[in-house]
Amino acid sequence: MKGTTYEGSGRLRTVSVDVAPPGPGELQIAVAFCGLCGTDLHIVHGNMDARVRTPLVFGHEASGTVAAVGAGVRGWAAGDPLTVMPLIWDGTCAACLAGHQHICQNLVFVGIDSPGALQQRWNVPASIAVPLPGDLDLRTAALVEPAAVAVHDVRRSGLQVGDRVVVLGGGPIGVLIACVAREAGAQVLVAEIDESRRGRVSELGFEVRDPAGTDLTAEVESWTGGVGADVVFEVSGAAAAARATTALARVRGTIVVVAIHAAAREIDLQRVFWRELRLLGARVYQRADFERAIELLRRGVLPAAALISGVVPLEETATAVADLSAGRAMKILVDVAGEARA
Amino acid sequence: MKGTTYEGSGRLRTVSVDVAPPGPGELQIAVAFCGLCGTDLHIVHGNMDARVRTPLVFGHEASGTVAAVGAGVRGWAAGDPLTVMPLIWDGTCAACLAGHQHICQNLVFVGIDSPGALQQRWNVPASIAVPLPGDLDLRTAALVEPAAVAVHDVRRSGLQVGDRVVVLGGGPIGVLIACVAREAGAQVLVAEIDESRRGRVSELGFEVRDPAGTDLTAEVESWTGGVGADVVFEVSGAAAAARATTALARVRGTIVVVAIHAAAREIDLQRVFWRELRLLGARVYQRADFERAIELLRRGVLPAAALISGVVPLEETATAVADLSAGRAMKILVDVAGEARA
Repeated sequence: MKGTTYEGSGRLRTVSVDVAPPGPGELQIAVAFCGLCGTDLHIVHGNMDARVRTPLVFGHEASGTVAAVGAGVRGWAAGDPLTVMPLIWDGTCAACLAGHQHICQNLVFVGIDSPGALQQRWNVPASIAVPLPGDLDLRTAALVEPAAVAVHDVRRSGLQVGDRVVVLGGGPIGVLIACVAREAGAQVLVAEIDESRRGRVSELGFEVRDPAGTDLTAEVESWTGGVGADVVFEVSGAAAAARATTALARVRGTIVVVAIHAAAREIDLQRVFWRELRLLGARVYQRADFERAIELLRRGVLPAAALISGVVPLEETATAVADLSAGRAMKILVDVAGEARA
Repeated sequence: MKGTTYEGSGRLRTVSVDVAPPGPGELQIAVAFCGLCGTDLHIVHGNMDARVRTPLVFGHEASGTVAAVGAGVRGWAAGDPLTVMPLIWDGTCAACLAGHQHICQNLVFVGIDSPGALQQRWNVPASIAVPLPGDLDLRTAALVEPAAVAVHDVRRSGLQVGDRVVVLGGGPIGVLIACVAREAGAQVLVAEIDESRRGRVSELGFEVRDPAGTDLTAEVESWTGGVGADVVFEVSGAAAAARATTALARVRGTIVVVAIHAAAREIDLQRVFWRELRLLGARVYQRADFERAIELLRRGVLPAAALISGVVPLEETATAVADLSAGRAMKILVDVAGEARA
């Protein structure tokens, strides 16, 4: 069976991978599709070399079916469609004991800290497998993981029906947040510097602005009748966007930090104080977010077709990474099974 | 009757003030004491010249008794002890309509934007007068306003019984927050760079550390058994303290921005994301905070005697401002009536 590994120093290889039978408590997955995300780009660019052990089969946005069931696993049978919530917590740290297992202080992120989905047979603990409904195609199901991120971000924001929401960044996560927020009853404006992405966001029916070409604060003030946004999602990772958040939010408004900011950012704490703003971090997801993401994808609320720019075989993972890094694509799926092209 | 006015350019004068009768809906207060706070120092140092209109009778931490009752005012009689919640909102802006009148977008702060308490007779709308219990002495009652700030900060934090709390800054507001948090069931550690203030905080029974002389992150980690603080109050206004907050808070912990930060501050958003932190602004107070502050002062929970470094006559307001600015005092009250020294 084949798999794609990160070998260090920016090198990828598609190799033959030995297939061990699933251990006790494990499922062996016949992986169908695996999406590539920003974290995967960081891995391939070597930014996470201090964390990952090479060679690493990466990938964590998977869909597939059960190939084999390990000893002691109940409730699963060969052929069942599934996805994976790629978090393994220790269950004993202060975060876990407080009920925040998803941000366990010793979290193992499967596909970063342990082998991931870019292999045709993948053994995972049955506890992290999430069943899929039979009427959700496996290509769309590869979007469950990023969609669950968006659901978690919106859930954490406390967004309410009728809220005015600004999303800073119109990439896959930004678009998914916009869709989840709209489905929850919000009106959404997306700020995105890339023209083609703005076009895609606009086609999905959202208000869209170019933060480089307009006075975004004035635009949001006008759009909200002078009030400011109820919720601002910072999804871009840009210093200027982080700086802008506090100017966009209404009195007692909420700012959600979704993006990874590699360096400390200047934040207007005077404005945080003056308007009694709330700034929240939101990271990965909980089981309820996966359930909701599956439901929204199944109902067609999330625009899978608009998000998936392309599907490539395992051997073209490196090209896909290059295209994503250059901003030439939104979401690229790797056809791990190779069947979709047959 | 006498009053102290800010004349602009850092100059104060104690002058004779005309006494108008209270207008309809107003109370005339015989001011007993008025505390001086950081905002008053900013006024006197000219930092707020763009906002204030001179000559300005400033001061907003008042206690006194009713001297005269204006037409149409019910529920008050001459001699009744009272304090003032110095906020006048417009009732029509988006913040007011959302129930956040205390941070009205067009808030009039009495004593900054309109005449304040450093005068022997002071007319205020009866709607902002707050009755005091007969057994609370008027010197202690001059602390109600800053105590209400502390109550508001703690209330906004969502602090729970058993929480571990770090207060950055051991001035009057920091000490009041520490006391309010302890009364609410928290264990409190105060970080303060000034040695004499550290001594005062320690005498009040709090854990205390010098953030300049120790590794505060390591200290808090040790003090919390490796977990981190449930709530961090940033009361110092220092850039280094703002930067430190995210390292001190536990997973899903809360940071409350109490201090005024004149410039944008560097904040570790990666840590906000990673630990799903919550950063909240907290400004002034609501009526419930005043009620609770009065109750805590009446019961002796808040250390009025330890906080009040001195009491000066109206004519010595400038000296008091100089002492406070030099860090030679915690809280100085102005004996506006002049009776305490008689």
